[in-house]
Amino acid sequence: MKKEEEFMKRAIELAAENIEQGGGPFGAVIVRNGKIIAEGSNRVTHDHDPTAHAEVVAIRKAAKELKNFKLDDCEIYASCEPCPMCLSAIYWSRIPVVYFSGDRHDAEAAGFDDSKIYEQLQISSDKRDIRMTQIVPQLSKEVFEKWSEQGDKTEY
Amino acid sequence: MKKEEEFMKRAIELAAENIEQGGGPFGAVIVRNGKIIAEGSNRVTHDHDPTAHAEVVAIRKAAKELKNFKLDDCEIYASCEPCPMCLSAIYWSRIPVVYFSGDRHDAEAAGFDDSKIYEQLQISSDKRDIRMTQIVPQLSKEVFEKWSEQGDKTEY
Repeated sequence: MKKEEEFMKRAIELAAENIEQGGGPFGAVIVRNGKIIAEGSNRVTHDHDPTAHAEVVAIRKAAKELKNFKLDDCEIYASCEPCPMCLSAIYWSRIPVVYFSGDRHDAEAAGFDDSKIYEQLQISSDKRDIRMTQIVPQLSKEVFEKWSEQGDKTEY
Repeated sequence: MKKEEEFMKRAIELAAENIEQGGGPFGAVIVRNGKIIAEGSNRVTHDHDPTAHAEVVAIRKAAKELKNFKLDDCEIYASCEPCPMCLSAIYWSRIPVVYFSGDRHDAEAAGFDDSKIYEQLQISSDKRDIRMTQIVPQLSKEVFEKWSEQGDKTEY
């Protein structure tokens, strides 16, 4: 079996085990130098954490493990196409390679909002289900000025 | 001063304090029944956690505090327009109301990738900077079948 399929099988196994433990049907692993360095499964309901999707859990573990917020030499294997939260987290973590098994339509058929959130992000904020309002914009300008004047800062 | 501006001032204050502590220029608060129940600032570099944006930190704290992954009776105040990761996290947490001060263009001017990631999410996966590949799709189908057959499950 190809190496990529082996890693995916592990992500799928985590998803299946997680269902048995009362969690959502999602798993993910992060691979570096041909080895799994972090695993995650969906902990949203277990941990009362709406951000605890499998990919986010795995990214957080890998970054802690490597003591680095940049995972630019890693690959991620997800049992399902990352939702927009997870895909954005992958961008922020600088992981350049993603493998997935199911897609957003499979997730939708199973009752999850991945597809819907992708659509919501693409429309203008005044048309979204969430009410979004910009207020006192000058206050943030002061903060960004402070940031640009700051000498010793870690950029990300 | 309007109540909304007071909450935003606190989010801005968290952003400014965070710069002094070597973190990114972002803060957020979550409000329920007219009171702040959770605060967050950007901990990406501090905590080696690429997902630790201010909004995600605040959502995680609020959900833990309420022992509920659904925050549908809350509002979030963010010092800057939520990036796609944070906005998706807001959708997943069911927060219906968002206030923000700066926008994605202010963030871009300060050197952050919010705008770029919004653009990347809107294009087809074969055109993205990240290489995305679907493999062994039948494996995930088995997992979703297991999920639909599962009796006692918490949906989210």
